[in-house]
Amino acid sequence: MNLRKLIEQALAEDIGPGDITSEATIRAESVSIAVIIAKQDLVLAGLDVSRAVFHCLDPDIQVSVFAKDGDKIIAGMEIAKLSGGTRALLAGERVALNLLQHLSGIATLTTNYVDKCRGFKAGVLDTRKTIPGMRQLEKYAIRVGGGKNHRFGLFDGVLIKDNHIKAAGGIARAVESVRKSAHHLLKIEVETKTLDEVREALAVKADVIMLDNMPIDVMRDAVKMIDGRALVEASGNVTLDTIRQIAETGVDFISSGSLTHSAPAVDISMKIK
Amino acid sequence: MNLRKLIEQALAEDIGPGDITSEATIRAESVSIAVIIAKQDLVLAGLDVSRAVFHCLDPDIQVSVFAKDGDKIIAGMEIAKLSGGTRALLAGERVALNLLQHLSGIATLTTNYVDKCRGFKAGVLDTRKTIPGMRQLEKYAIRVGGGKNHRFGLFDGVLIKDNHIKAAGGIARAVESVRKSAHHLLKIEVETKTLDEVREALAVKADVIMLDNMPIDVMRDAVKMIDGRALVEASGNVTLDTIRQIAETGVDFISSGSLTHSAPAVDISMKIK
Amino acid sequence: MNLRKLIEQALAEDIGPGDITSEATIRAESVSIAVIIAKQDLVLAGLDVSRAVFHCLDPDIQVSVFAKDGDKIIAGMEIAKLSGGTRALLAGERVALNLLQHLSGIATLTTNYVDKCRGFKAGVLDTRKTIPGMRQLEKYAIRVGGGKNHRFGLFDGVLIKDNHIKAAGGIARAVESVRKSAHHLLKIEVETKTLDEVREALAVKADVIMLDNMPIDVMRDAVKMIDGRALVEASGNVTLDTIRQIAETGVDFISSGSLTHSAPAVDISMKIK
Amino acid sequence: MNLRKLIEQALAEDIGPGDITSEATIRAESVSIAVIIAKQDLVLAGLDVSRAVFHCLDPDIQVSVFAKDGDKIIAGMEIAKLSGGTRALLAGERVALNLLQHLSGIATLTTNYVDKCRGFKAGVLDTRKTIPGMRQLEKYAIRVGGGKNHRFGLFDGVLIKDNHIKAAGGIARAVESVRKSAHHLLKIEVETKTLDEVREALAVKADVIMLDNMPIDVMRDAVKMIDGRALVEASGNVTLDTIRQIAETGVDFISSGSLTHSAPAVDISMKIK
Amino acid sequence: MNLRKLIEQALAEDIGPGDITSEATIRAESVSIAVIIAKQDLVLAGLDVSRAVFHCLDPDIQVSVFAKDGDKIIAGMEIAKLSGGTRALLAGERVALNLLQHLSGIATLTTNYVDKCRGFKAGVLDTRKTIPGMRQLEKYAIRVGGGKNHRFGLFDGVLIKDNHIKAAGGIARAVESVRKSAHHLLKIEVETKTLDEVREALAVKADVIMLDNMPIDVMRDAVKMIDGRALVEASGNVTLDTIRQIAETGVDFISSGSLTHSAPAVDISMKIK
Amino acid sequence: MNLRKLIEQALAEDIGPGDITSEATIRAESVSIAVIIAKQDLVLAGLDVSRAVFHCLDPDIQVSVFAKDGDKIIAGMEIAKLSGGTRALLAGERVALNLLQHLSGIATLTTNYVDKCRGFKAGVLDTRKTIPGMRQLEKYAIRVGGGKNHRFGLFDGVLIKDNHIKAAGGIARAVESVRKSAHHLLKIEVETKTLDEVREALAVKADVIMLDNMPIDVMRDAVKMIDGRALVEASGNVTLDTIRQIAETGVDFISSGSLTHSAPAVDISMKIK
Repeated sequence: MNLRKLIEQALAEDIGPGDITSEATIRAESVSIAVIIAKQDLVLAGLDVSRAVFHCLDPDIQVSVFAKDGDKIIAGMEIAKLSGGTRALLAGERVALNLLQHLSGIATLTTNYVDKCRGFKAGVLDTRKTIPGMRQLEKYAIRVGGGKNHRFGLFDGVLIKDNHIKAAGGIARAVESVRKSAHHLLKIEVETKTLDEVREALAVKADVIMLDNMPIDVMRDAVKMIDGRALVEASGNVTLDTIRQIAETGVDFISSGSLTHSAPAVDISMKIK
Repeated sequence: MNLRKLIEQALAEDIGPGDITSEATIRAESVSIAVIIAKQDLVLAGLDVSRAVFHCLDPDIQVSVFAKDGDKIIAGMEIAKLSGGTRALLAGERVALNLLQHLSGIATLTTNYVDKCRGFKAGVLDTRKTIPGMRQLEKYAIRVGGGKNHRFGLFDGVLIKDNHIKAAGGIARAVESVRKSAHHLLKIEVETKTLDEVREALAVKADVIMLDNMPIDVMRDAVKMIDGRALVEASGNVTLDTIRQIAETGVDFISSGSLTHSAPAVDISMKIK
Repeated sequence: MNLRKLIEQALAEDIGPGDITSEATIRAESVSIAVIIAKQDLVLAGLDVSRAVFHCLDPDIQVSVFAKDGDKIIAGMEIAKLSGGTRALLAGERVALNLLQHLSGIATLTTNYVDKCRGFKAGVLDTRKTIPGMRQLEKYAIRVGGGKNHRFGLFDGVLIKDNHIKAAGGIARAVESVRKSAHHLLKIEVETKTLDEVREALAVKADVIMLDNMPIDVMRDAVKMIDGRALVEASGNVTLDTIRQIAETGVDFISSGSLTHSAPAVDISMKIK
Repeated sequence: MNLRKLIEQALAEDIGPGDITSEATIRAESVSIAVIIAKQDLVLAGLDVSRAVFHCLDPDIQVSVFAKDGDKIIAGMEIAKLSGGTRALLAGERVALNLLQHLSGIATLTTNYVDKCRGFKAGVLDTRKTIPGMRQLEKYAIRVGGGKNHRFGLFDGVLIKDNHIKAAGGIARAVESVRKSAHHLLKIEVETKTLDEVREALAVKADVIMLDNMPIDVMRDAVKMIDGRALVEASGNVTLDTIRQIAETGVDFISSGSLTHSAPAVDISMKIK
Repeated sequence: MNLRKLIEQALAEDIGPGDITSEATIRAESVSIAVIIAKQDLVLAGLDVSRAVFHCLDPDIQVSVFAKDGDKIIAGMEIAKLSGGTRALLAGERVALNLLQHLSGIATLTTNYVDKCRGFKAGVLDTRKTIPGMRQLEKYAIRVGGGKNHRFGLFDGVLIKDNHIKAAGGIARAVESVRKSAHHLLKIEVETKTLDEVREALAVKADVIMLDNMPIDVMRDAVKMIDGRALVEASGNVTLDTIRQIAETGVDFISSGSLTHSAPAVDISMKIK
Repeated sequence: MNLRKLIEQALAEDIGPGDITSEATIRAESVSIAVIIAKQDLVLAGLDVSRAVFHCLDPDIQVSVFAKDGDKIIAGMEIAKLSGGTRALLAGERVALNLLQHLSGIATLTTNYVDKCRGFKAGVLDTRKTIPGMRQLEKYAIRVGGGKNHRFGLFDGVLIKDNHIKAAGGIARAVESVRKSAHHLLKIEVETKTLDEVREALAVKADVIMLDNMPIDVMRDAVKMIDGRALVEASGNVTLDTIRQIAETGVDFISSGSLTHSAPAVDISMKIK
């Protein structure tokens, strides 16, 4: 239902009171066949969403897909074929491609990060650094690319950060407050910046410990100190260049905002045949 | 009004039924001072929007700004100071920064493109390749970065593309149809791929001619052929590496989807003091 | 999509928590045949919208149409036949007729204006003087009646009026500001009240010049002065009595708010057989 | 609350992604004084609504009113003065005037009808023949003009029409069914076309009897026959020419759809000083 | 239409960004058969609504019903069988049952009240004491249980209470004001607390008289005094223990808020086979 | 923001196009003082919400509160005093009281359950058995009454029930699937009906084990078997009569749907002074 609303808003944003060029040049009865083609190598994400864009405009458009989300697509490959009203095809083209290019861009970048971690247990996590309104789809693209999702928002996971610790008067008090207040199906993650903080978090049995912006060697010491008593998430300065050495420290998860806020769109186009 | 709706949706997406960590660790009466800091050089865009995020949560939050949209900000500079309820500050932080980082990312990239064109008349244009729901803000960021906006959507500008030309039976017929149907305050732009098509478009007095994916030398010939009888927009394969030689051909505008769909977020953070 | 929302709001407005008379007197299973009949001569507009009203209440209602939008209908003619659930037919009757009578009223009046201009090039234009929420449908009815649309709103066309001219410091400056700021697919129309202002607008190459409330002979002089260098729109004091002599001056367009804000509804009724 | 939603929709319809002319020619800080002036004699309705339009755009606009809804305004009179941001004044102008002209048009026409009935007890009633989305405001304008409201919609009053009578198997059965089903605070009105039907409706103690499209002399006989045992509403063929003789028959109410669906807008304009 | 919105909101409330347990443990293609079973004796209400919940999630779910609203169901009886996607069945289960248990709870309690009045003319009425957002469905459940509806809200019935009487300056003035202002299809009910007030209400020909919180013997006197000249509604201190003696006084209606605000949910469950 | 939407919907539901009785009998300028009074002993919940109802109608209504949510209120006590426009006070009365009576009803019942558990560690939990649209407020009332919240919906906590276990092929596989798929901040709860199932859940290190509908002595054995290795939640057949002996078994939590779906409203009224 959320998806349908997002698509309707996107179409309203683009089409407004009408597609004046198509209405002038294309007869209402005209039908066409269109193909969606990858213009570069990519990991596909968002094909169902793109189809839903066209069906929102005209439920009678026929869509045949030649790939599915998660597939590695080679430049030049046809991803899908659409047939139906020419006006609807052209009216939906831009919104459908905008979604497909953005989500496939995220999936493609995620796969690159995941591939760098091969051989280590570290899972690649997203963050809450998403484009407003797009979180559900962007987090879906992360999974399609082989990554894992962090909590969805502020409401479905506890992450005690420095500001919470200061306000509560220390890690111990913060954890204790959350144990009383949050429901019993939630674990507690504590953000730490030093080994001392890691020690404190362990002392109060934090379920998950985030190592925030730690140098690699400190991170390695932290993992040793934790020694399986808590899950470990590394965060900060995660790039394609640094992620493998972070994974080597033995952390359970590596999270990066770039996966969602800086993934370049991949090139996909639609051609009317 | 649209802006307020977008902010409310973004906050609902992130906060859902409640910020469980802050509610457990921070008293409702707690107040704090926070600063928003640039972590890299950037062109600022979205400061008013970010402020509106906090005011949507709590109209009593005080915001002092040390910069304004369009300013070039140096890494380390404080952009704004906020004071008010700690819970509201933390609840708004992520959404406010997500918007500020994305919009400033677009403005920063746009400025880079614009700088490359210095000395030539070519204006840098955006496209309809935007993130669903974000077009109004993204097009604002383009202007902040020194770029110009293309039409907003399908409804406020005529752009006759290859599919329209095919459907109408040639450039002449397509232009003629639009002249009859579109309102009298709209110009007509025609997409061309060859010098022959440019000639056809000139023959029917297209107001604007788009040179789509033409090699640089063909583009140069096209500009000569047009000779001021229409505005000229170059499109396709526009990158930081290619844009200057495109500008040198003498086109009036250069449009690029990358400005909106692939601008990496810039790094901005918020610290509670 | 907008249309569906408008229909849902109209039905909610009329039916609210329920049609108490029909629920008491008509069994849920009852089916009927109804005909929609013109009670006066008219130009039909809004038949698809009216059908959509009934389908919004019950997608199984069968609708046969005996005319289409734009047809001249003679008093007494049957326009459409509906068969389906009696309750749904009666619940939709008023909203469907309200739309059909209003839109056909506009189309009918527009045709009268257009007929008066026969033999001259002047197109009959609508304005932004529409009923809130109804603009898209009302502008559609204008086209059905043989008129042409002016810009849809403030966002898809430039019209520099006296207040803009004063604020900018003259016609020249106002036009120059718009040229810098508005996108390159928009023409510029300037409102003028005197021949001096027409001269100024010509000097800065306004694309369209509006002659606002000018006496007929001044209008004639203005058309001569412009001499094809800009499109000319006449506005003000346009009635069925005056429109022909305005057309005779040689203007390209004549715009009138009455077409939308004062068109009387035509008489159309629905009978259950 | 409904009103606010209607205003927001009307502004969104007109302004869309932005007022491109004002943004180009008027500085954001510019302030102005504007007056709203009657260009013809009229009965004012909708002044609060119009003010709310401007306040929806900018709560800081100052509004002084020189009249109130229901006042008879003479051509040339100033109705209100506004001072505030020039851009907001111009952006709100059209929507505010569209509402004010339409509602005052209805109030003015209603007053004309009411004046014709002076000396008789007949109240002038509106109908459900309103513009979709505008019913609450249009019914308000009816009251302002001295008329009375009929039921708001299908949900707050019982009106048994011919189709209900047929479906129920006669007037007696229809009235009986409604007595069982509708809540105990609702009266029952029955539509009649002949004196026989009036007799039937009286027999089952209908609270209100509508005389639908009856010739004047039949109407007079019906009123005599009813003799105060039910309220009497005349309906059909009600015009400024016929209404007085209808009132003379002694009916309690005269209802007319023209009041809402065919009232011409009155001429009101806004001038920036 | 309202119903669909209510169901969508309820599903969004429960499912949010996703059913994490089912997504992890149940394959997307899995299909199942489920039965809805009564765990106690009850009067069924809300079966169509519950079905609509599942169809909102997946229109392909097949639903066979073994009972209909209004049926008395014995503990252990199967009410309906569903077959379709397992994920959709589990995602809809809670919302569907929450509605069915609440509405059947109201219908069951209403039937108990109605049964107590058997042999007397008194109808059992609901009130406006409903759960926000649920009024239309709750009032439907009242009817299913054999009760009758009072006015829906403040807009479709006149009930003059003590505060209105005080503000207007007495019962006579209040009734007179309403006669002038409310539309002619509405009756007038007056709330009374003493026999004197009953007398006053009779004097001005109130259509309905509410006896509010009167002792049984005063109520009996009031009914005698009214003697059929107005409908009589008893209100206040209505319980399963007191309702029969209230009915014995001869009142026409007995209204009770408990029917909607305090009806315990009945026990209904869904089992996957 | 959600709260405001809920209040607006509730007011629209009750007031619709207008409060006809108050508009007829009370002048627009009339102001009054009103008090909200408890008619029975209760635990207060929802005072802020009720205040927001009045402020939604008129932000100028002054509200003084004599108690706060969570307070035990004695019958007859004044809870709050309001002063402001009489019409707004009466228009808001029913919605404000409906919310206050329902939420205080839940808080009062919850306190009764919590009191029964005094001396034992068992926390009293709510469920997802809430009225559609009211979950956030109902769960708030639970906390106010001294209870604790279970997960909010299907999206913020994992609860593996019998259907998930069957679909996954056993408890071990279901837990394993969830471990792979759900984010790392979520614990896993498993529903068990027998001691064998408890043993299986322990074997795969379920974080929380629900004992569903177990006899008291089996429950006691289960708690012994679990012996602190998982949190224990008792569910099923929880009433005021049974809850204490359930608490005596040593479980950590006892959950009951009755707290929300069957709490009778408490009696609170508003009087205009």
